[in-house]
Amino acid sequence: MREKIVGIIGGMGPEATVDLMRRVIEATPVEDDADHIRMLIDNNPKIPSRIKALIEGTGESPAPCMAQMAKSLQGQGADFLVIPCNTAHHYYSEVAAEVSVPIINLIELTAQTVQRRQPGIRKVGLLASSALRMIELYEPWFGALNIEIVYPDADSQASIMQLIRDVKARRCSDAQIEEYNAAARRLEVQGAQCLVVACTELSVINEKLRSSMPVYDAADILASEIVRLAKP
Amino acid sequence: MREKIVGIIGGMGPEATVDLMRRVIEATPVEDDADHIRMLIDNNPKIPSRIKALIEGTGESPAPCMAQMAKSLQGQGADFLVIPCNTAHHYYSEVAAEVSVPIINLIELTAQTVQRRQPGIRKVGLLASSALRMIELYEPWFGALNIEIVYPDADSQASIMQLIRDVKARRCSDAQIEEYNAAARRLEVQGAQCLVVACTELSVINEKLRSSMPVYDAADILASEIVRLAKP
Repeated sequence: MREKIVGIIGGMGPEATVDLMRRVIEATPVEDDADHIRMLIDNNPKIPSRIKALIEGTGESPAPCMAQMAKSLQGQGADFLVIPCNTAHHYYSEVAAEVSVPIINLIELTAQTVQRRQPGIRKVGLLASSALRMIELYEPWFGALNIEIVYPDADSQASIMQLIRDVKARRCSDAQIEEYNAAARRLEVQGAQCLVVACTELSVINEKLRSSMPVYDAADILASEIVRLAKP
Repeated sequence: MREKIVGIIGGMGPEATVDLMRRVIEATPVEDDADHIRMLIDNNPKIPSRIKALIEGTGESPAPCMAQMAKSLQGQGADFLVIPCNTAHHYYSEVAAEVSVPIINLIELTAQTVQRRQPGIRKVGLLASSALRMIELYEPWFGALNIEIVYPDADSQASIMQLIRDVKARRCSDAQIEEYNAAARRLEVQGAQCLVVACTELSVINEKLRSSMPVYDAADILASEIVRLAKP
């Protein structure tokens, strides 16, 4: 079986896409260039903002742009596609309907991976954008596995949202990281048995997250799945 | 004038391409995702090896594969193209002949940038693959500017070539880095007035290069040029 080519519907944000590529390269066992996986990437930061469309309710839907990118990547030869942005999976069905190659559903994959790695888990703490929380993206998938989601309190969530914006703008302070870690600690007090990093901007700064609980990073889970699917 | 889209003929090696994307993102002044440049990337590690074709003389030419990638990126909407691999510029003309959009010539750009930043310079120390040296890729461009190139001695060059292979395989030791820095110091003794890092694998580990001389990194020069050309 020949190795598969992955197409990346990227740019949400651009650095998160680069971060995913780096993770795929690190997760691939290699001796030379040719052992790596071929990746076709449209790193398109002009995709309409998911935050504006979902939270502020003022922006246009990013779905048509994402669908166009998906079709183009398929046309170029991608065997399967990925979307390195959790929140953008709100548009998953609309985009998937426009192509014949499969698109990995990162939300489904992450929920199932958490359960497989930590069997019997009942409560996860979710670190994500306020948009993702508002649209309850993870609820059906964790719900189907009888796993409850706990979110940070309103103040913590607001500071995490600001942190996400600041990672996109390439600035975030030590004080913000400290608040982020404090929010994570409070999730444990609320009964969380693990943390799920469900925002690819938070994945970019994942090494700054300190926790005594297991941490499952959706970007890492996606990178492993890409290597698994691509390699014969 | 609308912002331009860059197409990256990547994968030589894959990590060097990710490194270039990171540099472009860092070099772009932004407040949010949409301020970034759209990049279309074919990160294709299956391009026939430049080292095998040029040094070992056993491999097929990478030119047809690169030309195919260039055409596909142009078809997807790239306004201009780049090749984040110095040695691969041996095939520059063959690839450029197949597309109507311009391809940045990294060799020409680097030589001219060094002269502009250090006017009056007469001798540069070149850190690059043995293939690049063998084909004398930089000679015409620096020669036209009356700048002489000094290369590491044979032993140092062999250890640099091994270092490049090991960066591709994601392993390189402190001892190798020390040898690399020793080779750079000997170039100064040989009269070099600056160092030119002319291999994108060496760019990946550029922060480990210590020198009292000015260091010009071709990957950095390319990233700045991408931002300059793309932004109106």
